[in-house]
Amino acid sequence: MVERMVYINGGYCFESEAKVSIFDRGLLFADAIYEVAGVIDGKLMDFSAHMQRLDRSLAEMHMEIPYDHDGILEIMRSLVEKNQVEEGLVYMQFTRGSDGDREFLPSAKLSPTVFGFTQHKTEQEKKANITGIPIFSSPDIRWARRDIKSVGLMGSVLAKWQSKLQGGEEVLMHQDGFVTEGGATSFYIVKNHTIITRPISNDILHGCTRKALLELVQNSHVGLEERLFTLNESMQADEAFITGASTYVCPVTAIDGVQLGDGQVGAVTKEMQHLYLEMARKEAI
Amino acid sequence: MVERMVYINGGYCFESEAKVSIFDRGLLFADAIYEVAGVIDGKLMDFSAHMQRLDRSLAEMHMEIPYDHDGILEIMRSLVEKNQVEEGLVYMQFTRGSDGDREFLPSAKLSPTVFGFTQHKTEQEKKANITGIPIFSSPDIRWARRDIKSVGLMGSVLAKWQSKLQGGEEVLMHQDGFVTEGGATSFYIVKNHTIITRPISNDILHGCTRKALLELVQNSHVGLEERLFTLNESMQADEAFITGASTYVCPVTAIDGVQLGDGQVGAVTKEMQHLYLEMARKEAI
Repeated sequence: MVERMVYINGGYCFESEAKVSIFDRGLLFADAIYEVAGVIDGKLMDFSAHMQRLDRSLAEMHMEIPYDHDGILEIMRSLVEKNQVEEGLVYMQFTRGSDGDREFLPSAKLSPTVFGFTQHKTEQEKKANITGIPIFSSPDIRWARRDIKSVGLMGSVLAKWQSKLQGGEEVLMHQDGFVTEGGATSFYIVKNHTIITRPISNDILHGCTRKALLELVQNSHVGLEERLFTLNESMQADEAFITGASTYVCPVTAIDGVQLGDGQVGAVTKEMQHLYLEMARKEAI
Repeated sequence: MVERMVYINGGYCFESEAKVSIFDRGLLFADAIYEVAGVIDGKLMDFSAHMQRLDRSLAEMHMEIPYDHDGILEIMRSLVEKNQVEEGLVYMQFTRGSDGDREFLPSAKLSPTVFGFTQHKTEQEKKANITGIPIFSSPDIRWARRDIKSVGLMGSVLAKWQSKLQGGEEVLMHQDGFVTEGGATSFYIVKNHTIITRPISNDILHGCTRKALLELVQNSHVGLEERLFTLNESMQADEAFITGASTYVCPVTAIDGVQLGDGQVGAVTKEMQHLYLEMARKEAI
């Protein structure tokens, strides 16, 4: 199997050669953030939204990186080109770096560790977008700063795992009686031709695909409500779907074994898939 | 400066040579746990309690490692010896390993990444145990599974950082009106010759030093109450202290700028310091 070319700290190398110190704060404290941009037709989707969110994560973590948006764009494009990605994603992670030892508080001057790699879209992901997926619910046990795109992801991993054991392809997390979001996606229900999704706060990630989609909804004939809703309301919805950088708009056909509507991909979901892909394709850079 | 000898995946090497793949799940998902054992007189403190907690963390994370307690004891002792640690700590981290790519759910068969290193006790830590430290409070924003000794530590890091900016040497976290614990330590108050500390649950780490100390308290003339208590009650306490594997019993002399008692290290705290160190020295292996 041909190795991917990956980026690390200013250069490109084979994936098997890309390594970080055991003292990297990303490894010792999950002191790191990341971004994932979708790739379509060999171009980057929603790039400026990802850069806005990256800046926000960095500010909230009190981190600085020696890259501007153009620098990151160049790295992401190089990764796509070197690995001939037509459809898939580019992942980039930014850790606070290493001060050569383990102390909770970082020493004043650290040089961030930055690495990136690509993935090709899998057949399974493509199929999910056509047929939809069943999901299962789980309490949201993550930290209180889900707005930061941190690598401290075990709350999501354990929840997704729990769902998978029941046959779910994503998890639907809930807290204090209300749905928060998916394990790695934003979540939406559709009732009476209106899309309902949780408003952004520190309780959920500020999804880039979510942002793009809601702009499209506002310019469509479909209604939009940003409000809290329960798991029970979700199970009584006409349709449901999730969104993510590499997921696009993916239909949800059942929650906790309860079929939504007639169990087929709904009309509003299909329309959103179409609208999003059309826009994303046109605006990919 | 002489490099430390560290342990990684079956061997020992210079610290600058110890590296992990960028695809290690410890780095991408904080999918890793750790243990820290104190070293005194060149011997390991509370070793069996640390191994019990390690087994518990592994089980809760659905992780397996190809080491038994004797194997880990041998590694920890070798690290202490190779680095001539008289007083300090041995840190060991266990990640789920890498499956060569990034997927939320691990592939079936992963080989864990295991590494360990030592630290010598600093003069600052020694001084803190004598004079006590001021601490500042912060909301507890960590995930709901604080009983797992996970490397997803940014909730603690950000809180400790916030405290440090105010002059605090540790943070006192609180949630729903009640104190949880320190950023990397267990927390106790003393009122009318009785030690009060939060009972263990998923809300706090099950401290090994805490466990050892509470056994000593139960065999002493000092009272013990395991119950919830508020930040306000803490500030009105006669004394307060924190415990941790490398902290031992460290006096707290002020909370949020409010001096406790007469601002000196209290009699009960001093007695606990004495009792703990005497026991730990005797039972270190």
